[in-house]
Amino acid sequence: MYRTHTCGELRIENIGENVTLAGWVQRVRNIGGMIFIDLRDRYGITQLGFNMELDAQIGEKARKLGREFVVQVSGEVIERESKNMQMETGEIELKVLALDILNASSVPPFTVDDETDGGEEIRMKYRYIDLRRNPLRKNLELRHKLAIETRKYMDGLNFMEIETPYLIKSTPEGARDFVVPSRMNEGQFYALPQSPQTFKQLLMISGYDRYFQIVRCFRDEDLRADRQPEFTQIDCEMAFVEQEDILKTFEGLIRHLFESVKGVQLPEFKRMTYADAMAMYGSDKPDLRFGMEFVEMNELTQNKGFKLFDDAELVLGICAKGAGEYSRKQLDALTDFVKRPQIGAQGLIYCKVNEDGSFKSSVDKFFDQDKLADWAKSCDASTGDLILLLAGNTAKVRKQMNELRLEMGSQLGLRKGVDYKPLWVLDFPLLEWDEQTDRFYAMHHPFTAPKSEHIEMLSIDPKKVNANAYDLVINGVELGGGSIRIHDRDLQAKMFNILGFSDEEAENQFGFLMGAFKYGAPPHGGIAFGFDRLAAMFGGTDSIRDYIAFPKNNSGRDLMIDSPSVISDEQLEELNLKVEIK
Amino acid sequence: MYRTHTCGELRIENIGENVTLAGWVQRVRNIGGMIFIDLRDRYGITQLGFNMELDAQIGEKARKLGREFVVQVSGEVIERESKNMQMETGEIELKVLALDILNASSVPPFTVDDETDGGEEIRMKYRYIDLRRNPLRKNLELRHKLAIETRKYMDGLNFMEIETPYLIKSTPEGARDFVVPSRMNEGQFYALPQSPQTFKQLLMISGYDRYFQIVRCFRDEDLRADRQPEFTQIDCEMAFVEQEDILKTFEGLIRHLFESVKGVQLPEFKRMTYADAMAMYGSDKPDLRFGMEFVEMNELTQNKGFKLFDDAELVLGICAKGAGEYSRKQLDALTDFVKRPQIGAQGLIYCKVNEDGSFKSSVDKFFDQDKLADWAKSCDASTGDLILLLAGNTAKVRKQMNELRLEMGSQLGLRKGVDYKPLWVLDFPLLEWDEQTDRFYAMHHPFTAPKSEHIEMLSIDPKKVNANAYDLVINGVELGGGSIRIHDRDLQAKMFNILGFSDEEAENQFGFLMGAFKYGAPPHGGIAFGFDRLAAMFGGTDSIRDYIAFPKNNSGRDLMIDSPSVISDEQLEELNLKVEIK
Repeated sequence: MYRTHTCGELRIENIGENVTLAGWVQRVRNIGGMIFIDLRDRYGITQLGFNMELDAQIGEKARKLGREFVVQVSGEVIERESKNMQMETGEIELKVLALDILNASSVPPFTVDDETDGGEEIRMKYRYIDLRRNPLRKNLELRHKLAIETRKYMDGLNFMEIETPYLIKSTPEGARDFVVPSRMNEGQFYALPQSPQTFKQLLMISGYDRYFQIVRCFRDEDLRADRQPEFTQIDCEMAFVEQEDILKTFEGLIRHLFESVKGVQLPEFKRMTYADAMAMYGSDKPDLRFGMEFVEMNELTQNKGFKLFDDAELVLGICAKGAGEYSRKQLDALTDFVKRPQIGAQGLIYCKVNEDGSFKSSVDKFFDQDKLADWAKSCDASTGDLILLLAGNTAKVRKQMNELRLEMGSQLGLRKGVDYKPLWVLDFPLLEWDEQTDRFYAMHHPFTAPKSEHIEMLSIDPKKVNANAYDLVINGVELGGGSIRIHDRDLQAKMFNILGFSDEEAENQFGFLMGAFKYGAPPHGGIAFGFDRLAAMFGGTDSIRDYIAFPKNNSGRDLMIDSPSVISDEQLEELNLKVEIK
Repeated sequence: MYRTHTCGELRIENIGENVTLAGWVQRVRNIGGMIFIDLRDRYGITQLGFNMELDAQIGEKARKLGREFVVQVSGEVIERESKNMQMETGEIELKVLALDILNASSVPPFTVDDETDGGEEIRMKYRYIDLRRNPLRKNLELRHKLAIETRKYMDGLNFMEIETPYLIKSTPEGARDFVVPSRMNEGQFYALPQSPQTFKQLLMISGYDRYFQIVRCFRDEDLRADRQPEFTQIDCEMAFVEQEDILKTFEGLIRHLFESVKGVQLPEFKRMTYADAMAMYGSDKPDLRFGMEFVEMNELTQNKGFKLFDDAELVLGICAKGAGEYSRKQLDALTDFVKRPQIGAQGLIYCKVNEDGSFKSSVDKFFDQDKLADWAKSCDASTGDLILLLAGNTAKVRKQMNELRLEMGSQLGLRKGVDYKPLWVLDFPLLEWDEQTDRFYAMHHPFTAPKSEHIEMLSIDPKKVNANAYDLVINGVELGGGSIRIHDRDLQAKMFNILGFSDEEAENQFGFLMGAFKYGAPPHGGIAFGFDRLAAMFGGTDSIRDYIAFPKNNSGRDLMIDSPSVISDEQLEELNLKVEIK
């Protein structure tokens, strides 16, 4: 061992001890006849003192150390003259009697500080240096702790962690698969799993009634800022359960994680149907840290001669408490916000409730004070509040109003981190119709069970069928989702049929699952949580990339190892492949 | 919840309770007016009783149940008339008052019993049924427990589990990579990791001085019976350590696993150099459950006119205690054994020590009783023992004698399971010369550090250089191996050079690692354990396939999901690939 203690360990009690430390040079300061060095490792920082009078040779050697040099030092723990009570080791320093340079370092391309001077791209390229910074180290420690506590909770409930294969079979349904050419099976390919969905269902059929796995998943999608081609899931499945059992079990998991990792006692997990969430918040992942629910205002706004309202399928209002003071400029900015192409509203109508009880609206011309008073009443707006209205096609106006509501929540400081509002969103539709391809898609996935009371409707009006599907949302972030699965072979066949699979396609892609349904499949269901996103929520940020040791950029490249890359002609030949770039 | 209890839970204390169970029909017996059903789940079996007199309708329904039907039953727990004390639930049975068929089952293709009638291939195809059998369930439970205990031990020592990427970069060194075409980076490929080797080294450079991960690894090799294209490793790395620290830490892990999972207290971990292991056992993974060490007999056997000995580079003997009674037929069988092409010995010479102290040898003609007495003395053979000799080229005769020793150990019952003899094999050679390609290969991998006292010899006689590399062997099975790594850029460059990499190749493949060595790389080393093999050893068998939920066959195929398979032309086109089978 190169050390007797870590750099985060020595305290006033250790004074007088002879110790050896090893770590990285964080900082070198020359003060008169003394050289002070901050020595850093994963556990903390310890101040080293070199006295030129005591030993000029070691002092000279210390003076030449650069940032990020790796050194081993031995000496005596002494009390510091000027203590730093901000640091855990701040009461002591090491009077160094021996210094060994274990490895030199070139000047690092950016500073290894909590706030670094390195840009995104250079930090990705030198990820191994960026990972030395405290914020990233804390993120990975948090992630480790979350994994440990997840396993502790699941194991305690008799869940078995079972590893499922990574080399599986490509299925065109859903997102795009990454594929892996097989050398031994000419012209054939494996696929990397988008999730262990079918395998965990097979495990239920095998009788492993409580399964979980912290598992990597792969999706070859065009990446957005918060997506990675490979990501980690807490994947779970249970047999002989109903939806309620799953909600309770995993409410327990999330509670356990918040308590054990963050010391936070979560409030009640609210429940809301998908339909209500869409009607009240225009989103299936509403942020419940604040109210500002949508108010349907068709009756109060239509047929009064204002065309935008009259032409609309839906007129929605929200009440921003205390925003009555918004200036003309602020209101114009909000109008610009909702008119941006990403949001696409035709316009924003407002109505302020003034101090004197009167109303000021952008549509005064069409609505007199009495009518505006009715608006205020329906929106529960009082003095000093601001009512904002959007109108148009139902789906679009909900989406737009969701964006506006979140923006107002942010502007009014209602979306602060420390407050956690968990919510189960329930009763998702089973299917969604895609205009472009003129077919139904499974909203969750093709294995999701319709509500039993809706099964007959499946043949009559599939659009109206709801699923036993649920999402867990905290503060507007979808942390996980799942469903009760189909365990009946005929119902599964019908589902594939509705989704436009020919019998042959269904057999070819999912024959093994359909086959398994013949041999005693129990009722079952499950859930999966995005582990990267969970870690990011615990860390208090949005960027999952900061919680992955070696992430890829938006083009799916690892800038550090410079991958993907070309492979040799011999490799291609062995795989019976030819690259043809058009 | 479909049940109040599991099928392994009810005891005499529960008598009188009304309970609900759910599970699979293991067995239906009609005995007069009674129908008895064994209901099975993951936790056990409970006997259900249906009384035709009590309720003929339910009785009739029960009578029609087939094996593997999934049912839900409610009723009263009653005391059994004829108790079965072999079963945990054997004192009670359930008097069934309600029966629901949750799902029917076709007749399963093989029996779901501890000893099944299904062949290997059909059980692979219907793996989800095979996994219902107790032996496989116990294997997966064991594996889960091993993973839980591994993480508990590692976390307790401040190791962080850090996930490394699965989509990495192909490197031609070592085994063949599986590759993954990138759609977003035209004509380029990721590779699946053969191990997280370089990433864990980068983590050491990042200061995460205690890393581990239970991680999937991939190798596109021609498969042998005990190999899988994807396998799991307990992958570990430490910084600021020497070999001794690693041996102690992981001796601790293995001890912890044996104690916590098997209740076995391991004896001392012996240590042996690679050179000694080869000289004494002809193997770098000797089975130390029995002695039978090799005896070098050149002096005692050569220049006595027996050509096989005289032409040999090495003559080796072993003494099989108590095998002096071997018949002519048994000795002939041993000769056939060593002459098989897989072993390839030219012949087997024996010498028995008779009851009367005389010797009987197959080479009496060349060696008189005195000379044979010298053999016996050198081999420590006494009355009733059998000396076996092989001669030839050193490397070959060691290999042959290793096989013969293991065979004799098996024949004499010296390799029984319950006895565990752990061994560290140390001081492996750094390099091995390959005659075919006329170049050196790294015996462990290119990142392994030579012993510091051998570094100079690297330029003079690379063959003689030993490495700080170690393997953990238990009972002849290599459970894990590792090494102290190079952390010096120049030494690593020299190593690549000796391995025949051009500077450009080294830069192209490992530039990121060489780059990282410039910015303060600490001394570090690590180890990796084969997790599938570890589970198999704990389970007491050789076949890792029985410890993997969904394994592949020897052609790398998953017979259940029928993978790999062809993919669509659209998929290929998006990836800029064309399949060309020659």
